[in-house]
Amino acid sequence: MNTKGVLFDLYYVVFLVLLITVPANLVQGRLLSIPRPPPENAAHFARWLASQCSWGVLRNVVSFSDGLPDKGLGIPYFYLTTLDPTARNAFEDPRSSFTISEYPLGTCGKRDPESPACAKMTLTGKLKLVDGNTDEAEFAQTALFTKHPEMKDWPNGHQFQFFKLEIEDVFLVNWFGGHRALTVEQYLQAEMNKLSFLERILL
Amino acid sequence: MNTKGVLFDLYYVVFLVLLITVPANLVQGRLLSIPRPPPENAAHFARWLASQCSWGVLRNVVSFSDGLPDKGLGIPYFYLTTLDPTARNAFEDPRSSFTISEYPLGTCGKRDPESPACAKMTLTGKLKLVDGNTDEAEFAQTALFTKHPEMKDWPNGHQFQFFKLEIEDVFLVNWFGGHRALTVEQYLQAEMNKLSFLERILL
Repeated sequence: MNTKGVLFDLYYVVFLVLLITVPANLVQGRLLSIPRPPPENAAHFARWLASQCSWGVLRNVVSFSDGLPDKGLGIPYFYLTTLDPTARNAFEDPRSSFTISEYPLGTCGKRDPESPACAKMTLTGKLKLVDGNTDEAEFAQTALFTKHPEMKDWPNGHQFQFFKLEIEDVFLVNWFGGHRALTVEQYLQAEMNKLSFLERILL
Repeated sequence: MNTKGVLFDLYYVVFLVLLITVPANLVQGRLLSIPRPPPENAAHFARWLASQCSWGVLRNVVSFSDGLPDKGLGIPYFYLTTLDPTARNAFEDPRSSFTISEYPLGTCGKRDPESPACAKMTLTGKLKLVDGNTDEAEFAQTALFTKHPEMKDWPNGHQFQFFKLEIEDVFLVNWFGGHRALTVEQYLQAEMNKLSFLERILL
């Protein structure tokens, strides 16, 4: 067999592998950047959910980001205007809870949005303004504007500011049998499972 | 031209019309049963949102239904277990707010989930248990089990019961310039825009 023939066979095998594996990781037309961890690994699962979701409910529907794609730190940052009651109320009473759902990610299969096997998480804590001109404000801006490019064009006159949720409690349901026992420390310290592009599509 | 030729031309025209119109109403692979009303029609828009969404946040992520598909009455019904804090807390303090987002419907185009042009609605009121063996309990069961077929197989031992939100306030954002002035009466009395199958795909 000549070199050309071997190369052809190699390409053919790679093509077949991709044909089988890519659709499994393609969810609603996009490649999930990090595969869904097994539900029993509560801390990793919670961090995966926080890094993959782009919006949730904080009194109202809001967008958020916990960092750059695949580099989330678990703390949700927001870009809110005090023209909206959500941010205005936070100055009077910062106690807040923020709820996200796995359902819109498309990874729940045919499960109902309320099924315990389709994950949901509520982070409870205090909604705090991020001080302007700090490293953290820069982090928040990069994290948010990367995942939500529309934000950088939101009108200056509307006084949008960066906020974050200081997490005091993590309430995760991702399987049957009630919520997971998961401390804030376990949640924040979990290492995200970063995979190479090849691992991502093959796993 | 003979009859066969005329018929062929007719089929051809219908085929072309469908080719153009169906994709416009196909959102994330499904045909929207009722087209998105113009945002300025607040009451119709709110009722459309309630009838098209299948889940939202009521302290946690829950599924709901306001009636049979295309026949929603605007009042969200839920199927909850008192094993979950959401329903348990309702007996102590029924005050609740329920938030839904247009974003997962796929009708927001490229707009960010937080954009005012991507609708969100919070219904505030009291979460009440629906008395068993009443017409309303039957309505709730049909409404929920039709939109959430998995529910009929949820375990008997978990004491699932029907609940509804008695709406006291409607907070709808579906365009720039703050939330819509919309009373509960206007919301509940709005007639849903029922369209025939042909109108649905042509509009």
